[in-house]
Amino acid sequence: MVANGAVDSVKGPQPSCSPLALENINPKVVKAQYAVRGEIVIRAKELEDKLHAGEKLPFDKILYCNIGNPQQLGQHPVTFYRQVLAICDYPELLESAEAKSIFPPDVLARAKKYLAAIPGGTGAYSDSRGAMVLRQDIAKGIEERDGYPCDPDNLFLTDGASQGVHAMMRLLLRDEKDAVLTPIPQYPLYSATLTMYGGVLLPYYLHEETGWSLDINELREQTYKARSEGQNVRALVVINPGNPTGQILSYENQVDVVKFCKEEGIVLLADEVYQANIYRPDKTFTSFKKARPFLSSQPRCLHACEEEVTLASMMSISKGFYGECGRRGGYTELVNVDPSVLSEVYKLASINLCSNLNGQICMALVMNPPKEGEPSYDLYAKERTELLASLKRRALKLHKTLSALQGVTCTEPEGALYAMPQIRLPQGAIEAAKKTGKAADFFYCMQLLEETGIVTVPGSGFKQEEGTFHFRTTFLVPEPETDEVAERLVKFHNSFLAKYGEPEQ
Amino acid sequence: MVANGAVDSVKGPQPSCSPLALENINPKVVKAQYAVRGEIVIRAKELEDKLHAGEKLPFDKILYCNIGNPQQLGQHPVTFYRQVLAICDYPELLESAEAKSIFPPDVLARAKKYLAAIPGGTGAYSDSRGAMVLRQDIAKGIEERDGYPCDPDNLFLTDGASQGVHAMMRLLLRDEKDAVLTPIPQYPLYSATLTMYGGVLLPYYLHEETGWSLDINELREQTYKARSEGQNVRALVVINPGNPTGQILSYENQVDVVKFCKEEGIVLLADEVYQANIYRPDKTFTSFKKARPFLSSQPRCLHACEEEVTLASMMSISKGFYGECGRRGGYTELVNVDPSVLSEVYKLASINLCSNLNGQICMALVMNPPKEGEPSYDLYAKERTELLASLKRRALKLHKTLSALQGVTCTEPEGALYAMPQIRLPQGAIEAAKKTGKAADFFYCMQLLEETGIVTVPGSGFKQEEGTFHFRTTFLVPEPETDEVAERLVKFHNSFLAKYGEPEQ
Repeated sequence: MVANGAVDSVKGPQPSCSPLALENINPKVVKAQYAVRGEIVIRAKELEDKLHAGEKLPFDKILYCNIGNPQQLGQHPVTFYRQVLAICDYPELLESAEAKSIFPPDVLARAKKYLAAIPGGTGAYSDSRGAMVLRQDIAKGIEERDGYPCDPDNLFLTDGASQGVHAMMRLLLRDEKDAVLTPIPQYPLYSATLTMYGGVLLPYYLHEETGWSLDINELREQTYKARSEGQNVRALVVINPGNPTGQILSYENQVDVVKFCKEEGIVLLADEVYQANIYRPDKTFTSFKKARPFLSSQPRCLHACEEEVTLASMMSISKGFYGECGRRGGYTELVNVDPSVLSEVYKLASINLCSNLNGQICMALVMNPPKEGEPSYDLYAKERTELLASLKRRALKLHKTLSALQGVTCTEPEGALYAMPQIRLPQGAIEAAKKTGKAADFFYCMQLLEETGIVTVPGSGFKQEEGTFHFRTTFLVPEPETDEVAERLVKFHNSFLAKYGEPEQ
Repeated sequence: MVANGAVDSVKGPQPSCSPLALENINPKVVKAQYAVRGEIVIRAKELEDKLHAGEKLPFDKILYCNIGNPQQLGQHPVTFYRQVLAICDYPELLESAEAKSIFPPDVLARAKKYLAAIPGGTGAYSDSRGAMVLRQDIAKGIEERDGYPCDPDNLFLTDGASQGVHAMMRLLLRDEKDAVLTPIPQYPLYSATLTMYGGVLLPYYLHEETGWSLDINELREQTYKARSEGQNVRALVVINPGNPTGQILSYENQVDVVKFCKEEGIVLLADEVYQANIYRPDKTFTSFKKARPFLSSQPRCLHACEEEVTLASMMSISKGFYGECGRRGGYTELVNVDPSVLSEVYKLASINLCSNLNGQICMALVMNPPKEGEPSYDLYAKERTELLASLKRRALKLHKTLSALQGVTCTEPEGALYAMPQIRLPQGAIEAAKKTGKAADFFYCMQLLEETGIVTVPGSGFKQEEGTFHFRTTFLVPEPETDEVAERLVKFHNSFLAKYGEPEQ
């Protein structure tokens, strides 16, 4: 949209006298990386524009498998949520004669309940932690999940779980000596926020050969080593089910993690946004709140006590079978945190006023869905069951496709929305990548995009064991298209090997 | 919600071995203050709970005049926005036979347009800057407002304007030598973010005696002084119309501001969220983008060029006559910023994925409302006109009430949503406040709350000229209640003076 007669624009970097130039902005911002939406995605958008402009490419659409964004790829939202949200946004619907024929009675009742309890509805700032009626519904859902009490005043509703991670990093990190134990591979929000808030990423490796397992001894070793180098180990990030790895921790492993955090005085940051995405019949999700081994024979203490671990559990409406990414809803539950610190978190939330009410309401609907016997239950249960079954089928199919590729091994995804295959790349490709100044898996993923329209994230974006290469892909391509996508992927991989030679084994 | 049998909670501060204690969290968080939702609001909530529990207090409800949150106080939302939003959240409405009788055709058309152009609708992450179709509508609105081109790729949609301010502070502030010229009194988001991001608040005073005017010479003096002390003056914050002061800058004053920023190589951060709130017939809102004096005879350059000032203009859906606070929508327009820096801002936005789509859509509706001749126009225009006229009546009435109080002077609010009276407090009150360790205006506001239920923000929360006392109150109390509220305020003020003595003049 360049106007006629606009003066020439200055191309390239600004002269250094500009008050906003790469040379004079916050270097931590420049340093931060976020591969899930990086260079490959920007290139994908360019290609998409070309397709829209009618240009001929080797594919007819871009498939965004770089990000867990199910509705973008056509996933249908949960009807119950959307019906309640529509009424909350336009309460006049309640008064219309037509409403009763459009909406089931429990939808009307839920919308009425929320509208009555939230002064100003979705149009007014709520309590900075989130509207009380919604925190109460979420607390109830957490209690039902865990069997332990949940105090709504320990809940902080956020615009997606990312905002909760930001808040925790802001709270925890004081200077460049503060370190956070972070899994490798990791979701790059953690590396990005650690860079921006000025902390140290203290890596622990998930072991691919044993299903991306977490080794407590390694946590301990890394902690002691960091301390001996003068660092303060402030927190441990655990993503369960794993992103990008898809593993589900065993209960015993979780208990060990909790014990480790308690013994070492480390805050446990539990990223539990994939808690509804479990695909193995022999696996279940256990929250870290439930896996605390202390006082296990009695209800857990609601408030700060010495025997307990300090825990922040992050949840989101963006994942699961609901996939309400664009709505930006989430919560952080703080467990065993002193009221004086809760006040500081409350103040932090207040500086942002509040998270969006539409997302807050959706978070409450996720944690307090229709119950058996209620009018919306059957449809809700059908949508949930079918979607999760479909995700499982797609996960298995993708796993099978990837595992059959020459030089590729792939751990079976037990949960979450991703597969993270390891690709053994031919020496020719590694050298060609080096010449472009890029990591070899970036090189692979960029070519995959150019030739198939499939957008993935190179393993280097998540960090990975030195000398290995991976990529992450979602299994969110709609089922009718999976065969074709698998075919394209196989064809690309084979032609890549044909071009650059056999992979090293 | 304390469960039976829960173990005793530990009261008071945690032992210092706790990994999350006041002593070991980020001291910048502890230091940050945000009075708009501080101690007085927390006390108000306690009183509200007492009222709900049936306790007898000197008032029957809490009136939140501390924050520009119109819908919480009963303001009706703009119908057109809510209708479009409801359909975007539940697109099945489009297919229902009833839709045509509920929604006007331009509502249906707008919802269809957005749903067709946003893959995944409100349920999917959009481009991190915001969905293109919405940025295009906003750009169109900005072009109509200013008469100059606007490139949608210079727009970053945010969860409220606050998020935009956070992003700019994060981008600009490198270390504790980076300073930002900030008006006193200021909206405490600025002091809070400056504290949190580790910059210096470099104050310039708005002059109350001349209608909270801005003096360019003072900007220059403060800048030179700061530089001589080794500080880097990175940016100038201007809030126009003013918050908390309600003043509207003259065009000449704005041009001087722009020239100053250009000459001194300072980024102009223009907080323009109250641009629709103008109550004086002789005043208009001019954006800083329009007030740039350079190249004034021709269309402005769309991209970075040396002759231009670097500007970030922040806008929100929370204010104006729309008051959609809970929806959290806003944008930042970056003007004359090099593409390399735009990429960094884009990356920052990507780390948060995107702002909520419901808020994004509402921002587009605000900037591209129904046009004359369209089916929704008459109702839209009526709602806008009536609301703005009502706000003006309430502003004048509040101003009259406050000005008549003994020892109180109040600049007439020309715009925004607030009055900021200066209160001359009796020595007895100042001494009584000192004994409680609080600022004297805090002491006044807290007593106002306890006796009338009216929640205000003490001037000390915004910073103010040494030795003066103020408070900020919105004029958002619904019109039928304004007389009664005025009466309560007068009664309280008189009894306060009766208790603590005549004010010093």
